[in-house]
Formats: sequence, structure tokens, C-alpha cells
Amino acid sequence: MTKIAELPRNEAGIAVALDELAAAFGERLLTGQAICEQHGHTTTWIDTQAPDGVIMATSTEDVSRAVSICAAHKVPVIAFGTGTSLEGHVNAPAGGICIDLMEMNQIVAVNAGDLDCRVQPGVTREALNTHLRDQGLFFPIDPGANASLGGMTATRASGTNAVRYGTMKDNVLSLEVVLADGRVIRTGGRARKSSAGYDLTRLMVGSEGTLGIITEITLRLQGIPEAISSARCSFPTVQAACETVMAVIQYGLPVARIELLDADVVKAVNAYSKLTLPGTPLLLLEFHGSEAGVVEQAETFGMLAEEFGGNGYAATTTAEERNKLWQARHDAYWAIVGLRPGCKAVATDVCVPISRFAEAVTAAQARAAELGLIAPIVGHAGDGNFHASLLVDMENAEEVARGEAFVKWLAELAISMDGTCTGEHGIGQGKRSYLTKEMGGAVDVMVTVKAALDPHNILNPGKILPE
Amino acid sequence: MTKIAELPRNEAGIAVALDELAAAFGERLLTGQAICEQHGHTTTWIDTQAPDGVIMATSTEDVSRAVSICAAHKVPVIAFGTGTSLEGHVNAPAGGICIDLMEMNQIVAVNAGDLDCRVQPGVTREALNTHLRDQGLFFPIDPGANASLGGMTATRASGTNAVRYGTMKDNVLSLEVVLADGRVIRTGGRARKSSAGYDLTRLMVGSEGTLGIITEITLRLQGIPEAISSARCSFPTVQAACETVMAVIQYGLPVARIELLDADVVKAVNAYSKLTLPGTPLLLLEFHGSEAGVVEQAETFGMLAEEFGGNGYAATTTAEERNKLWQARHDAYWAIVGLRPGCKAVATDVCVPISRFAEAVTAAQARAAELGLIAPIVGHAGDGNFHASLLVDMENAEEVARGEAFVKWLAELAISMDGTCTGEHGIGQGKRSYLTKEMGGAVDVMVTVKAALDPHNILNPGKILPE
Repeated sequence: MTKIAELPRNEAGIAVALDELAAAFGERLLTGQAICEQHGHTTTWIDTQAPDGVIMATSTEDVSRAVSICAAHKVPVIAFGTGTSLEGHVNAPAGGICIDLMEMNQIVAVNAGDLDCRVQPGVTREALNTHLRDQGLFFPIDPGANASLGGMTATRASGTNAVRYGTMKDNVLSLEVVLADGRVIRTGGRARKSSAGYDLTRLMVGSEGTLGIITEITLRLQGIPEAISSARCSFPTVQAACETVMAVIQYGLPVARIELLDADVVKAVNAYSKLTLPGTPLLLLEFHGSEAGVVEQAETFGMLAEEFGGNGYAATTTAEERNKLWQARHDAYWAIVGLRPGCKAVATDVCVPISRFAEAVTAAQARAAELGLIAPIVGHAGDGNFHASLLVDMENAEEVARGEAFVKWLAELAISMDGTCTGEHGIGQGKRSYLTKEMGGAVDVMVTVKAALDPHNILNPGKILPE
Repeated sequence: MTKIAELPRNEAGIAVALDELAAAFGERLLTGQAICEQHGHTTTWIDTQAPDGVIMATSTEDVSRAVSICAAHKVPVIAFGTGTSLEGHVNAPAGGICIDLMEMNQIVAVNAGDLDCRVQPGVTREALNTHLRDQGLFFPIDPGANASLGGMTATRASGTNAVRYGTMKDNVLSLEVVLADGRVIRTGGRARKSSAGYDLTRLMVGSEGTLGIITEITLRLQGIPEAISSARCSFPTVQAACETVMAVIQYGLPVARIELLDADVVKAVNAYSKLTLPGTPLLLLEFHGSEAGVVEQAETFGMLAEEFGGNGYAATTTAEERNKLWQARHDAYWAIVGLRPGCKAVATDVCVPISRFAEAVTAAQARAAELGLIAPIVGHAGDGNFHASLLVDMENAEEVARGEAFVKWLAELAISMDGTCTGEHGIGQGKRSYLTKEMGGAVDVMVTVKAALDPHNILNPGKILPE
């Protein structure tokens, strides 16, 4: 595993804080080794760094109280959801206290007339959508994992629907946040737009628990579309598929999803999900709209795809076929992992302007081959965001080094294209070294904001900002 | 006019800064009384507070140099665009230097393939759209005035298209900003989404020149739709019109515009634009999509409107008819002003959850009548945002007092409904007293951020934050 350096521990402070937290929370403070390690463990190739204790919070007051105790003794505080982040976000490099928010899982209110809802941070996106379905509503943001909405907010997550519905930044109306000294603020109300002062909502979205701990989220919702249809189309090359995506975006076709699977992924998916897709690059699409609208969208897409050599184009509106195709897409991670059992799948996450997408994807394929690496690619093509999933034997130090070289090369490629090293996973520990390359002097402003809002650096230290 | 208290002036610093600026900028430093007063004058009922000098900036380097000189002597710096803001944003209550950005009016790059562009802050929205038209592209945000894109970014502006295309926060990809000490940063690249660190772009959008001066803007663009159609529909009551809007939003009809004009505005518009609309509340709509799509949208709207007693429904796809209707909407401000010549039209700007929109609009009408005020209402109904334009005889102190009472009452009503005192105009000087009522302890966080990024409070002092 990749090791991230530990930070100095405030042993005396941690000991006193643990005593005070035990008095305040009783059995809801957990300090067993297994539970602590579990709370530093995520879907990442970065080594676990366990906290010293875990608070099972059940209310905003709990979070405020726990943070206040930690603040008094300058002890790190790390928020925890489903543990599905990918860049070591929940590691505790200086030890400290993890606040587990998964018992704060209430859907506080659904305002169907306003297409919004208020949820606690431990509600998962699937739990929310299950709750909403009977009201004809849904929440569109869908990262691969069934992540908590608090974690999704904290990492500015997105997923396959972002091309149509945006990312968490576009779908959070306002937040309740516990600050570094335990104060509780609300960053806004339920108006659909506002020009009232600084946009603290967006400052907190994507701040990865380093500026505050999110204890309630007001989300925008969507009505379930009258009709949904899916389509798939194979292409002779990644280039041809990407050019089709560019044409779709420029045409203004309001696709809800447009996903790229490269030939390696298609073959893996065929094997894993027992499908018979042609073993060439594939675009998988979804259209949302009226009955007539989705038919028209699918036809327009078919016409555009044909211009770029698309073949085997098939559209469907039956839920069964649609679900089968999208299930295959959602299982792509496991299909990829299955290509090399025993290896770790290391997710990369670059995002580039659409006009550079084909170039970036093909360059990534070529570079992986040069380095002797297996790195199948899936992409949220409509956003220019793609994941090359490196399959690395973590026991083989030389191969790990090649993997690290690829990850670095890819991040720098995206930055050189006016893109980003992370489209949706966040910086965490894993991408800190790229932030300054990407953002330059803006990082100093981030450091200033962090120092102002968390002067003792207790909120998720060692994340996002350079050392 | 409403007076806002002046702030203490740093006379010695201003004198030295003016000398240094004169040496650095020569004739591009203007200090004539008329030009200074013009740069403190905006579309507002707040008294002008002129700066001591105006720099006509032509480059980012100019802005950085001017800010550096002002920073060295702790002299206020106020950014200026078209001067169309509504809440005293460009006033200089402590004197200081205005930086006029209107000569920074270059469209630096248009990336048609990526649907984005880079512009200097002095480009107006109309100039940008004129430039884009031949490429089949447009920028959708349209506040009433032909504002500068820098000013629109700084106030988080929106307008009639926001229901479909969002506000400036949704359409700015990244910014170049001059900080309070003259440093220049870029807040991001051209990727359509990113999870790389704190969202400084959104922190700057809506910060009204108090955290930095925007010197370049990367904007998202849209393809001009294949088809555009308009519709209008009269309603017996505001309640019926608002209920139709709620139905439209819940139905998920992707209206591009849905504007409410109350009966007073319709009558004013009839007189001003020589139309013969029924003298009852009106909804004015625009649909963007494919040829078939806009027809279907218009039909669906007609069906929904009928359920709520809509009458005189008329749809059109000819550009001439459409332009005539929308011209009338855009001229509504002048039509309203014409109702009471010699009076000032004072814009209000509350925004509430859609489910409270009907209640808020009808309460505002009733309250204005109670207070003996004329306050016709237009609303960006799809967002729950409306403007009651008070027509006030500014020479009549007692009437001005009634006007102020109405403005305060309306802001507090919106806040009590979980809405905001400003949907799109910003806080400026005029709404500072409501910010704490609306945001509570979050204002303390804003104050902390401001102090961290502008420790000597030289960037647009006396705006947004409470004293």
C-alpha cells in the first residue's frame, strides 16, 4: 500500500479529550482497535491511519459537543460516512477522534411542492431515492458507491448524471455545519437562488471536512421524468466515440447520461455480466423527457453517432433492458477488478475540456501500455471526466512504483490541458501534491481561509492543503 | 434619497495614494468631481458617495498595480462596471479609489467545442451575445440591464432565464482575481467539473468586490436552441398564476423563462408598449428545444394553465411576435416608472420557496395598498423571485419612510418564509441590515473570511457585512 507520512500527535490532548468524551458520550465513544481501524479504512490504495476513538453521533448537538471538547484540547476531528472515499479522506495521520455520522440518517423533511428536502448527513443516496420514489421525485447525483449524502457533499461528488443535473455543488441548496469551535451555522434557506453575502454553501461543499462538519443538507430534487430511454452504440475507436460525445454536447442534446467504456472495460463487462457487447469502445446513454422527447433524443443521437462510425446502435425504453445495461455499467468496477484477481484497483479521476477528451483518453491508454500496466477506462464522457482503473499488485514494489508514475503523469497531463487532477473524488491525502500544480497561488488563499476558520488545524488535518 | 452613513476617511493615505497613482497611471487617473460622482452613482435610491479618484484600467497588471498602491496606504478600492447595480454597491462611503473596468472589454477566447469562453470583466452581456451569435452560441444570464459580466459575477446576478440555465454561480467556470494585496490568482481551469480544493470561484461570485477584483471570467456557454417559442396566458388572480407556475415546476416542464406580471404591470406595459393584453395577472413564457419539443412544451403548459383558470393563452414561434412580447417585458421597468413621472422606482428583490410564492406576492400587494404605496410586481416566477417596484416621491419624507417600512417588511416576510431578502441584486449597502436576520451566525463566518483575505478592509468597505 502507499504510505502517507504520519503527522505529529498531540498525545496529552488526545488522552484528556478521550476522558472527557467518555464522560460525555459513555458507550457511544468506541476505542476498540478494530472499530478504529475500520474508520480509517476506505476504498483506496493508501494505508489506513486509524483514529484514537470513534463517536457515534446521533444529533447536531452531539457533533457540536464532541468538536468543542476536541477544540479545547487541540485534538483532530474527522467526519465519517460510508467510508467509500477514494483518496484517504478519513485517515487520521495525527490520530484524533472520528465522528461517525451514519446514525444521523433521518430524512427530516421532503417539500414536494418546492422540489427540495432536508436530510441528515448519514442518509445514503439510495435510501433517499427509495424514500422519494412514491412521491415521483428523485435525487440525481450518483457516484458509484451508495455513499452518504454528507460525504458526497464534502467531496463535491457527481457521477453519471452530472452532464444533465450537475454535481453536488449544483444540488445543495444550503447546509447546517458545525465549525471548528463547535458553533453551529446554517449557510442559507430554501430559496432556489440568493445573492445574500458570501456563498458559504459552496465553500463547504468539497471542503472534505476541513472547514466544518456537515450536520444537515438541504437538497434540490427532480421530478421522475415521464419517460426514460437508454441506448448503446459501439465505435471502432475511442477517438470516434469521443468525437460523437463532442457532437452531442455541441448539438445541445440534453442527454441525462453519456458514458464511455473502452474496449478493455467492454470485454471485462461481457465476462462479468454475461453480455455479448462488441469488444470495441462503447457509449452508453440515457435520455430523460416526455415520451415523444426521449424518442426524438435517441433518434438524434443515432444520427450523430452514425456520422462518426457508430455501429450496433440500439435504443430501448423497457425498464428491464435498460436496467441490465446500466447494471453492467455500475458493475464495471467489479468487472475490472475481476480481470486481475488479488490486485488492487486504483482509481484515477482526471477531467479535461471536452475538446481534449479523446486525446487524453488515448494518451492514457498508450502511456499505460508503455508502462506495462493494465488500466481499463470508463468515463463520464459528457463532462470530460474519466477513470483509468489501474490494476496493481500491491505486493510488487516495482509495479507499485510504475503505477504511481502513471497516476502522476495522468494528473499532470490533465492539468496541462487546463483540466483538473480530480473531477469528482476530491484531493484527500492522495492528490495533495497536485493541488499547487493545478491551482498555483490560489492554494495560498485556501490556506488563508483554512487558517481563519480552523486556526488550530483540528478539522481533518493533512487533507487537501499542501504541508 | 436614502442616506447611508459615511465611514471614517484615511485622508493622509488617500492623498499619498493619489500621488502615487498619478505617477503610475498619468492621465488614466481621473479626479474631476463629475467623473468621481458618476462612479458613485447607480440605479438606486441610496445617495451617491463619490470616490476620490478613478483609474481607467486596461489590464490585469493595471488592477494589480493600483490595488498594491492602495494596499500600501490602506486606501479603499472599489471596482466599477456599468454602474447598474441596485444597492449602492459602487458607493465610496470612506472615499478611496474606483477602478473602472469598462476598458477591459476583450473577449479573450471562445472555445466553441467546449461551450466556454474567457472574457474581461468589462464585456457586457449584450456585447458577448452579439459576438457569439454567428457561432450558434449564447450566454443565457440576462439581468434587466446590459450589465458588465464582471459586475454580474460580483453580484451573483441572474434574470429571466435562471429557471432553466441557473445564475452566475452556475455559469462561471473559473476566475482570475486580484486580491487585496495585489496578488493575482486563478480559481480554476476549464474542466466542466472539479473536486480540487475549496471552491474559490463560488466564494468570489457574489462577493461584490469585497474579497477581490475580478479581472477575467471563464464562462459556460449554451448552443442556441434549434427552436424557441413563446407563450402568454392571463389569469383571474395572482394566486391562479402562481399555482400554475408551481404545477409547471413540479411537472418538470423545462421552461426557459416563466415571468409573472401583476395586473398593475400589465396595464403599465399596455400603455407603454401599445399592447392590448387583458388587464389581469399575466404569465409570459419561453420554451427552448427541438421544433417538436417546443410545440409539445407549449401544449403541456396550455393544459396546465387551463386547470388553474388561465385564459387568452397564445403561443407563437415567429421571432417578431416573440420579440414584441419580450420587449414589453424588458421595458416593464420603464413602463412602471411611467406610471408616476418624477418618482423613483425602488427595486425590491425577495425570493421565496415556490410553495410560498403566491402567498408572498399577494401579501406584498396587500401591504403596499395598506401603506398607500404603488408597487407593481414582476417576478421570475419559476425561481420564486419577485420585484415589487415601489414608486416613491423622494421629496416627500413621509412617503419615503412608508417606502422604507415596506422594503423592511418585505425582506422580513421573505426571511420568515425560509427565503432571502435578495434573489439576484445583492446586499450592497441597502440590504446589510437584513443579512444577519437572514443568515444568523453564518455572518460571523463571512466576517472571518473577509478579515482573513482583506485584513485592512480596503476592498469595497461598507458593503455586504454588518458594521
